[in-house]
Amino acid sequence: MMNSLEEMGKKAVMAKYRLQVLTAEEKNQALLQAAQGLQADREAILAANGLDMQAGRENGMHAGLLDRLKLDESRINGMAEGLRQVAELPDPTGRVLDSRERPNGLRLKKVSVPLGVIGIIYESRPNVTADAFALCFKAGNGVILKGGSDAIRSNMAIAASIRGSLEKAGVPKEALQLIEATDRETATAFMKCKDYIDVLIPRGSAGLIRAAVENSTIPIIETGTGNCHIYIDESADLEEAVRIVINAKTQRIGVCNACESLVIHEKAAGDFLPALQKGLEQVHMVEIRGDAQVCRILPDAVSATESDYGREYLDYMLSAVTVGSTEEAIAHINRYSTHHSDAILTRDPEMAEKFTREVDSACVYVNASTRFTDGFEFGFGAEIGISTQKLHARGPMGLSELTTYKYIIEGNGQIR
Amino acid sequence: MMNSLEEMGKKAVMAKYRLQVLTAEEKNQALLQAAQGLQADREAILAANGLDMQAGRENGMHAGLLDRLKLDESRINGMAEGLRQVAELPDPTGRVLDSRERPNGLRLKKVSVPLGVIGIIYESRPNVTADAFALCFKAGNGVILKGGSDAIRSNMAIAASIRGSLEKAGVPKEALQLIEATDRETATAFMKCKDYIDVLIPRGSAGLIRAAVENSTIPIIETGTGNCHIYIDESADLEEAVRIVINAKTQRIGVCNACESLVIHEKAAGDFLPALQKGLEQVHMVEIRGDAQVCRILPDAVSATESDYGREYLDYMLSAVTVGSTEEAIAHINRYSTHHSDAILTRDPEMAEKFTREVDSACVYVNASTRFTDGFEFGFGAEIGISTQKLHARGPMGLSELTTYKYIIEGNGQIR
Repeated sequence: MMNSLEEMGKKAVMAKYRLQVLTAEEKNQALLQAAQGLQADREAILAANGLDMQAGRENGMHAGLLDRLKLDESRINGMAEGLRQVAELPDPTGRVLDSRERPNGLRLKKVSVPLGVIGIIYESRPNVTADAFALCFKAGNGVILKGGSDAIRSNMAIAASIRGSLEKAGVPKEALQLIEATDRETATAFMKCKDYIDVLIPRGSAGLIRAAVENSTIPIIETGTGNCHIYIDESADLEEAVRIVINAKTQRIGVCNACESLVIHEKAAGDFLPALQKGLEQVHMVEIRGDAQVCRILPDAVSATESDYGREYLDYMLSAVTVGSTEEAIAHINRYSTHHSDAILTRDPEMAEKFTREVDSACVYVNASTRFTDGFEFGFGAEIGISTQKLHARGPMGLSELTTYKYIIEGNGQIR
Repeated sequence: MMNSLEEMGKKAVMAKYRLQVLTAEEKNQALLQAAQGLQADREAILAANGLDMQAGRENGMHAGLLDRLKLDESRINGMAEGLRQVAELPDPTGRVLDSRERPNGLRLKKVSVPLGVIGIIYESRPNVTADAFALCFKAGNGVILKGGSDAIRSNMAIAASIRGSLEKAGVPKEALQLIEATDRETATAFMKCKDYIDVLIPRGSAGLIRAAVENSTIPIIETGTGNCHIYIDESADLEEAVRIVINAKTQRIGVCNACESLVIHEKAAGDFLPALQKGLEQVHMVEIRGDAQVCRILPDAVSATESDYGREYLDYMLSAVTVGSTEEAIAHINRYSTHHSDAILTRDPEMAEKFTREVDSACVYVNASTRFTDGFEFGFGAEIGISTQKLHARGPMGLSELTTYKYIIEGNGQIR
């Protein structure tokens, strides 16, 4: 396997030098060709997906996962439409980010350029194969993908289709390579291909991301884990707070920007919690795990343990803690948050300002649902993931976050 | 040792929340206090440094290294002056990098904020203790430093002085912590303190940086290794080329932006190489290791092996290869360069444009010495290191590169 990874790495490096000089027009044409190709190849893709689905059912795969795995004509059209939308976006490379002339006459320009070769490890959904390729490619990067074993046949069919289209469009098909092996050893070896890969983005479970943190010698961008908090301040509009919390908790439970934990000012708890419970009854049952005061107010609440406060439930569950001040709320959140998205609900501008300044998270909200942490909602037109680390990119990552920069320095004989 | 690292980590995290809310004025006052403190404590610092020097001499330390280790009154004044200069620089935090209003009324602001806690591992020179602290602190970060064993007494004295000044200035002295153990096991354990440290910057030998790449679970910024090339194009002004190469090779041999390798258009080689040799004779003997054509033109040249092209000599040595075109030159450089700084010398704007677009390095020069890759030369007013990776920061890193950003999103009840 190592040999094959090395071979793929070498091909990717050769391709990256060709990719970085493609014009926006050439890249867009290739994306449109790939979109058309996916639709033309739908029978082969659906057949491959059928085999994945059959294997999934035989292995007793959960209905929710089967649904994520499933492709049909409308989902293939959706993938193609995604490629066309990426073609519409402005090219993130070649932008002059800064320019200055030095006293010695040297002229400096800081210009955005592709990262080079991006590795992406992901799980389940086969549409990521097309989406991730499109974003990396639009930013001038080669990409090596490693998807999950459940979707391997679907992924191979999608990749084969796109590579065929790239060739037709006259750009290197090595812009997209898919690792066919799905074992863990290959994943670990992939994380060490530092000679060929510039950046690794693991997308998926907390376990996958931990494995990348521990094993990767390639710089990584950590994505996804979200233990998101909403703090209901003393001065919050409680009716609005109920609406926001219900939305952030229940609108989609399996996503990283869903609310997992409430922090409630003790003076608001008595009115807010029963109102919340009443509101939830009309939407969906949610198990609340709270501290002593929460349990006194809500007889149905379960007593929370320490580990509840740090958990990303991804389920109809919510931890809840009461605090005596915004300061205490901030300390609790900075301690337990995964630094993804946290919100304050308040009518006091001073508290809002304190909270947004002191909470150390990628996205800090005032009076809105945490569910808006998303590249499309932020207006980036795309999203490759949500970074929970501080280097390079933080929060939703769009096309710009798939670029780096170089300095171009022009002189006329300057020496030191 | 692990316990003590963990304890330091916890203190740093507590401090970082206090540091991130300091005003620019509070930070500057503390820096000025620290500058004054270093001068007031000069006797203690010089005494500690005297013990390091004595140990160095007893261990047979090389004269060059002894000189780097040595402190005297003027070098202490230099450190203090460095802190004062950092106080003068603009605060890199709190800048609004982007702001937008979404159709649903959400107002987004992208604001620069401190990274948090920065770990720095460095070797030899004790002045780095003061410099690295000052830059991290000015950007609102806590810092945990691990210096080399040779300078441990000097580093401890400098750190004690600065921490005393921080306390006097009323800011947390945990903004600066120095690891006193100097063994390798502690360094490795330090690289795994991911729960407390946001970013790790190794500064020093290629071996140190490799160890960090392999062992660190903390995101790192790779710095420093520079196998810098100068390509002498067919149309180069040969007289200017001789001056530039001599400067880039000999002005300071031990630095990462020194030239280590020449790439010469075969049509320029016959005139350029003898002129270069003549020029070098007047400055310093340099051993040239070249390909067959270089050796034919310069009888004193040594035959280069494959490994020469990838070497960072940090010495009066230079590899040299001839090529038939700018294309070939670019391919050679992209293969062997450490992607730090590479230059083309040419009078042909088309070749200059091709070279700057296609060479995949942090700094790409036209008609100037590679020696300008430096935060001060770039006008950043400071430098914490030179990044040779593509994530986060590339090339010289000043204060801005010691920050990240957060999104602040203000709404009035928006839900999805």
